[in-house]
Amino acid sequence: MSVKLSELQKELIARSEAYVSPRDVERTLKALRSTTDVWRVVELSQVPMRVLCTLLELLKERGIISFSEGSVSLTEFGKQLCDENAITPFVSAGCKHCLGRGIDIAFLGEEVVSNFKSISASRPEAVQEFDQGFVTEETTLARVAFMLQRGDLDGKEIAVIGDDDLVSVACALTGKPKRVVALDIDERLIGFIDDVRKKFNLHCLSVVQHDLREPLPEELLKAFDVFFTDPTESFTGFKVFVERGLQCLKGAGCSGYFGLTHVESSLGKWRKIQQFILECGGVITDVVEAFNHYVNWPYIEGMRSWQWLPVKVHPKGVWYKSALFRFEWLEPIEIPMVRYEGNIFEDEEAATT
Amino acid sequence: MSVKLSELQKELIARSEAYVSPRDVERTLKALRSTTDVWRVVELSQVPMRVLCTLLELLKERGIISFSEGSVSLTEFGKQLCDENAITPFVSAGCKHCLGRGIDIAFLGEEVVSNFKSISASRPEAVQEFDQGFVTEETTLARVAFMLQRGDLDGKEIAVIGDDDLVSVACALTGKPKRVVALDIDERLIGFIDDVRKKFNLHCLSVVQHDLREPLPEELLKAFDVFFTDPTESFTGFKVFVERGLQCLKGAGCSGYFGLTHVESSLGKWRKIQQFILECGGVITDVVEAFNHYVNWPYIEGMRSWQWLPVKVHPKGVWYKSALFRFEWLEPIEIPMVRYEGNIFEDEEAATT
Repeated sequence: MSVKLSELQKELIARSEAYVSPRDVERTLKALRSTTDVWRVVELSQVPMRVLCTLLELLKERGIISFSEGSVSLTEFGKQLCDENAITPFVSAGCKHCLGRGIDIAFLGEEVVSNFKSISASRPEAVQEFDQGFVTEETTLARVAFMLQRGDLDGKEIAVIGDDDLVSVACALTGKPKRVVALDIDERLIGFIDDVRKKFNLHCLSVVQHDLREPLPEELLKAFDVFFTDPTESFTGFKVFVERGLQCLKGAGCSGYFGLTHVESSLGKWRKIQQFILECGGVITDVVEAFNHYVNWPYIEGMRSWQWLPVKVHPKGVWYKSALFRFEWLEPIEIPMVRYEGNIFEDEEAATT
Repeated sequence: MSVKLSELQKELIARSEAYVSPRDVERTLKALRSTTDVWRVVELSQVPMRVLCTLLELLKERGIISFSEGSVSLTEFGKQLCDENAITPFVSAGCKHCLGRGIDIAFLGEEVVSNFKSISASRPEAVQEFDQGFVTEETTLARVAFMLQRGDLDGKEIAVIGDDDLVSVACALTGKPKRVVALDIDERLIGFIDDVRKKFNLHCLSVVQHDLREPLPEELLKAFDVFFTDPTESFTGFKVFVERGLQCLKGAGCSGYFGLTHVESSLGKWRKIQQFILECGGVITDVVEAFNHYVNWPYIEGMRSWQWLPVKVHPKGVWYKSALFRFEWLEPIEIPMVRYEGNIFEDEEAATT
């Protein structure tokens, strides 16, 4: 018996309902060489769950891996296949002090950090209805420290498009922005952020309850210097969030931030998204892999990808991470105000809805 | 007397021979708010020197800054202008342990680090003829640690296109790649790397002396998994280096690395370069700002931008930095083998040639 990676890659493409990147088989084997924890395989492989789960079934059929009691393991044959193809275990070279982000939140000052942490303690839980799933407190703070370093905080008007991560709160706590507006569809969140505003006297902070599928209220149009969003990752969902962000911006020189995973977006979708940013007149200034770390959400068994998993176990730690993207708008184009309808959360790669 | 940023921006565009990004005035004032050292203004502003030097003259004419004994300072009027526009000093939030790279070179092991440092001690000096200027030893090592983490080192065939940074040597010292080939036009470097190969028994390492303007030798075509290059930054120069890199790659799933500065490339050029990568069928996976730190080169007074500088002083520390880009080739297109002629180092933004 002998197997070639290229043959596996071909077979995977034939079976997969989603875009397969050229190195998906290699990356998955590299992850399998490093761990038997299926969630860690998701994280390390950087292969979309939709593709990964199909591939795991294929690898099992070919005798390359086996499943047992909540774990996935390379067989002897699988290990041999890795050796033949020089596939070694994954090595992290990430800085432990900043978890590879390159950012130290201590620059925000102790008070901002501790206030934000105490506020976060009583935040509303994530709900599946709005594809929520918030990042760790350190992640939100690191985002704000990043914005500070890039000159996107001091004196700026900032729109946060969907804010279960409480980025608006952390921005406002620094006392630096001119104005921060949090837009969200979720009443609970809007109420929570508004309560924080009152309690901490955050004059620059305000909230707007809004369904992003609907056109934006007039007063938010062309009114901001910066937007931050962590979009739902169907391509349509991404477009809805980022288009609304762009519609909020004043124009040339303004900047936008968003997160993007490998869990729900293939490199093919990454490329489509980059093309979209450039076509809108933007330039990508930063892509920091695995910057955003997500706290596990309570509806893990209710998400689409639970059914795809060949091994049903709950994740033990952070496994869902996303890259931080920043771009600047160099040559703004007019973004038409489209009304979107129906479910914007799903495409063939989406995994958590 | 009153000045508006938008008026300064307009006047700058009128005077500038190079692309002006929408926030160039704002960024320059922010840098001037933080330092009187002109090289630090270059670094912090992220404005191309070609544009920055024109702007500094303009700001002086308007009474916003003054020059004296090798320094540039905001006048009282200039400080007031900053206050009115909420322009505050630059704040670094970068992790001190990894200098904002997110990478810890200790993961390469002590022996690799110390051997590389001892080898670097006797490297050839940078020469202007080939637009050389090498990065710090820590930078080269961090690049290799980054490649290791991304799965671009173990068992891979790696082409280094222009190698005054000695990336090929650091890769080979890890013992992980299948093959590393250093291409360079400079006989001194080729000889140096070849001596290191012999002395350290680096069997996977080899060298090819080659002028990149000329078509590549047949045996290098479609033969590598990864290329690394730190191109000269005229747009043509960039294309020459990256096209040669792509021509070395086997095809889909291969990856490419390059550096890109703000000193010699406007955000307009950044965008053009990103469009080029996407049009070639690539997807950008990483953009890590200020990853690469350059050691000051001996021909500082001989470079183009020395004439533009309103204040002639030598830089004290690292001021020239570049972002690290990584991309993967998803849908390879055929890159025609063009022969380039003449000076590929210059465009209106190039500063160090």
